[in-house]
Amino acid sequence: MKPYQTTLLSSLLIGGLSACQTQVETAPNEVIQLQQAALSSQLSYDLVESLTVEVGPRLAGSPKDILAVNWAINKLTSLGFDRVYKEAVQVPIWERGEAKAKITVPVEQPLVITALGGSIATPAGGIQAKIARFDSLEALQQAKPEEVQGKIVFIDQKTERHITGEGYGKSVGGRSKGAIAAAQKGAVAIVIRSIGTDHDRMAHTGIMRYQDGVPKIPAAAMSNPDADLVGALLKRDPNALLELHMSPKNLGFNTSYNVIAEVTGSSKPNEIVLIGAHLDSWDEGTGAIDDGAGVAIVTAAAKHIQDLPIKPARTVRVVLYAAEEVGLVGGKAYAEAHKAELPLHYIAAESDFGAGRIYQIDTKVNENIFTEVQQALSPMSFNGVALGNNQASGGPDVSMLPALGVPVASLRQDGHDYFDYHHTPNDTLDKIDPAALAQNVAAYAQFAYIMANSTVTLTPLATQSEK
Amino acid sequence: MKPYQTTLLSSLLIGGLSACQTQVETAPNEVIQLQQAALSSQLSYDLVESLTVEVGPRLAGSPKDILAVNWAINKLTSLGFDRVYKEAVQVPIWERGEAKAKITVPVEQPLVITALGGSIATPAGGIQAKIARFDSLEALQQAKPEEVQGKIVFIDQKTERHITGEGYGKSVGGRSKGAIAAAQKGAVAIVIRSIGTDHDRMAHTGIMRYQDGVPKIPAAAMSNPDADLVGALLKRDPNALLELHMSPKNLGFNTSYNVIAEVTGSSKPNEIVLIGAHLDSWDEGTGAIDDGAGVAIVTAAAKHIQDLPIKPARTVRVVLYAAEEVGLVGGKAYAEAHKAELPLHYIAAESDFGAGRIYQIDTKVNENIFTEVQQALSPMSFNGVALGNNQASGGPDVSMLPALGVPVASLRQDGHDYFDYHHTPNDTLDKIDPAALAQNVAAYAQFAYIMANSTVTLTPLATQSEK
Repeated sequence: MKPYQTTLLSSLLIGGLSACQTQVETAPNEVIQLQQAALSSQLSYDLVESLTVEVGPRLAGSPKDILAVNWAINKLTSLGFDRVYKEAVQVPIWERGEAKAKITVPVEQPLVITALGGSIATPAGGIQAKIARFDSLEALQQAKPEEVQGKIVFIDQKTERHITGEGYGKSVGGRSKGAIAAAQKGAVAIVIRSIGTDHDRMAHTGIMRYQDGVPKIPAAAMSNPDADLVGALLKRDPNALLELHMSPKNLGFNTSYNVIAEVTGSSKPNEIVLIGAHLDSWDEGTGAIDDGAGVAIVTAAAKHIQDLPIKPARTVRVVLYAAEEVGLVGGKAYAEAHKAELPLHYIAAESDFGAGRIYQIDTKVNENIFTEVQQALSPMSFNGVALGNNQASGGPDVSMLPALGVPVASLRQDGHDYFDYHHTPNDTLDKIDPAALAQNVAAYAQFAYIMANSTVTLTPLATQSEK
Repeated sequence: MKPYQTTLLSSLLIGGLSACQTQVETAPNEVIQLQQAALSSQLSYDLVESLTVEVGPRLAGSPKDILAVNWAINKLTSLGFDRVYKEAVQVPIWERGEAKAKITVPVEQPLVITALGGSIATPAGGIQAKIARFDSLEALQQAKPEEVQGKIVFIDQKTERHITGEGYGKSVGGRSKGAIAAAQKGAVAIVIRSIGTDHDRMAHTGIMRYQDGVPKIPAAAMSNPDADLVGALLKRDPNALLELHMSPKNLGFNTSYNVIAEVTGSSKPNEIVLIGAHLDSWDEGTGAIDDGAGVAIVTAAAKHIQDLPIKPARTVRVVLYAAEEVGLVGGKAYAEAHKAELPLHYIAAESDFGAGRIYQIDTKVNENIFTEVQQALSPMSFNGVALGNNQASGGPDVSMLPALGVPVASLRQDGHDYFDYHHTPNDTLDKIDPAALAQNVAAYAQFAYIMANSTVTLTPLATQSEK
């Protein structure tokens, strides 16, 4: 270990002492060692660098998706995990094609848009129509059909910036459900203000849905500055015309894989502590923060546990999920394939929120043992992680597990800038701070180790008592 | 005036008092009034909003360029200037077309590029070649031809961030002269790291040059994250292949116009204080910071002088130059057309560096009257503008005037973030802070008023004494 790293760790430990006096005696040596190993290692940054440079964008079902699976198998194998394997998942194939837009009346203004994932194409000659602007999905849902009929719906809702990323939840309905609501009222297409907190002239993609029995219409997002511009033009001319040309294609299904690695438990190898991330990404960036960072975090965390002289009791399982972006496909497939084994899943957590520092750990465990679990996790405070609440969802690909009895944890990351880059071409390696990434690795390593050795009885989660 | 604006002005005045005790007695009432008017007015923001929304991108020689000229004539006329007119300028026509690039070996990685202004197209089938990477234009110039022959040159120089924007000057040579140096050594194309300080996956365009007798090769810029990616791939495989498809076109010349407005001087109407900006813009943003801001600043500044009950002695002339981006075409045309009148140009300044606050005023006047000029300009300190040096260039479109005997001034703006957005799709209205814009208007109004009433003999500039 280099001198400055020792100093950094010492500072962290000293910083932690005053705040967490009661926990000092309870921190196992291995928990401190894991933090030390994670903060002094470049492994996580090297992993996300390798994935973004050697694979890059890896949209589910594309050739690059398979390249990513092979990359993961090779990396996990070379890292020396006790077990490395993959499980086939059927994933939809969607190709982005081109997406162009411009205002043609009252003045020609080219716009920056991108197709939403799953969208159909416009007719070859494009679509030109008036614009029906709404402040939100709810406003669209309440509109009279005659306000929308024959027009292009424009949902113009800004996404609020927040450390938790909660602004996303407030505005993302327009993206996922907007096309259905617009088509039900006779719209010919929908373009939303990007679900993003930035001011970059880049549009944010993301999955959208159609509904059986409702006509499918093309769906796109425009950048925040473009949404401002369209709003300013509509104030001048409510009859402004918008022209769209989009050529995405839905091409059936392909086989992809959940890629799995394990550190075999020393005394309860059949019980599982699952730490996951998703291997697929959107296609316009290189998938650094979403979710190359998560892949790097959970892989490096498990590797530090693999390298301990004495392994924890339970098996630590790393799951790199397929096709999260296009509908949690890998997560759902895992839950189905491992149905019989779920009662042996002690707890699960997914890292899928970039590389901002973890400031809090929330759980979803039975209320009667919540305090005990908190006490067990309290050494994480040495790494800057506070104990939070018992309302965790665990992350997208494990979000279906609590209903199946599996406890989950959410390691809360600072997401102030996550939605500046999320689902845009700007999701690139330079957005990751290696020091923050390493702090994440330390947190996941400590979490997984503590849970893998915990004597608290967690499972099954009493799902009937859930809110 | 609204209460908070009075308070703002009072704060500014009180803030200025301690630093500038000696100048307090010398500030004419009109100079204070102009500051007050500028800081309490929305005119400048309304102007740049109008130009970016109602015209938008306005590349020299394009139909939008003429739309911008008509916009300017209408705005200046409706603002009630004493005189509004235009002067024809022949400007080159260049169309961007498409620009696509990808690394094809060792792995396919799509790249974000943009054509440099003036570039020719690639052959219809594109170009695929190995990459010759250089740290700078100078390194390319020193390379042996065999290192470059048949390859695509990649100049990988980062642009440093600085309040003065001086990093641009250090790296921009690769953009303007790189194609010549590369072609002289047998390169088939050139792609530079964008001349920009951002980490956005957007490429920065800008004018490039060819040279008679040297083959013309396609020239493009890639975004900073893409340059990082290409660098990382070249470290893994020096034989990496880059594929380029570009379809820009050079289409001859068109007539555009310098648009001019005047506040006629009350006692020396033939003498000119020139404040300028350029009306054209690049085509991928809406030309907000480059140079809609400048257009708004000098127009609003002159309007506040126009509205004074008593006009200053000399004429204040606003010049909105044509075709700055493509080679200072309007600036050169103005200098030629007004050759006989240049001795009557008391001083000139152009605003062409965004909308960051002005912190200093530099001049280029005869050394023997520099102190006198500084004393005259000292009331600008009330608006946060310090007195600087005598090494000003005046701005791009007036940069040729000192050699012709015309003194110039540079009102230095905070340019920390200017090269984050410069020449990219990100040059949009949201990048402008209305309060900072108004501070610019106040500074230009004060500068123009003080110079138009100054009793110091400025002209002609003793050009032989220049460095």
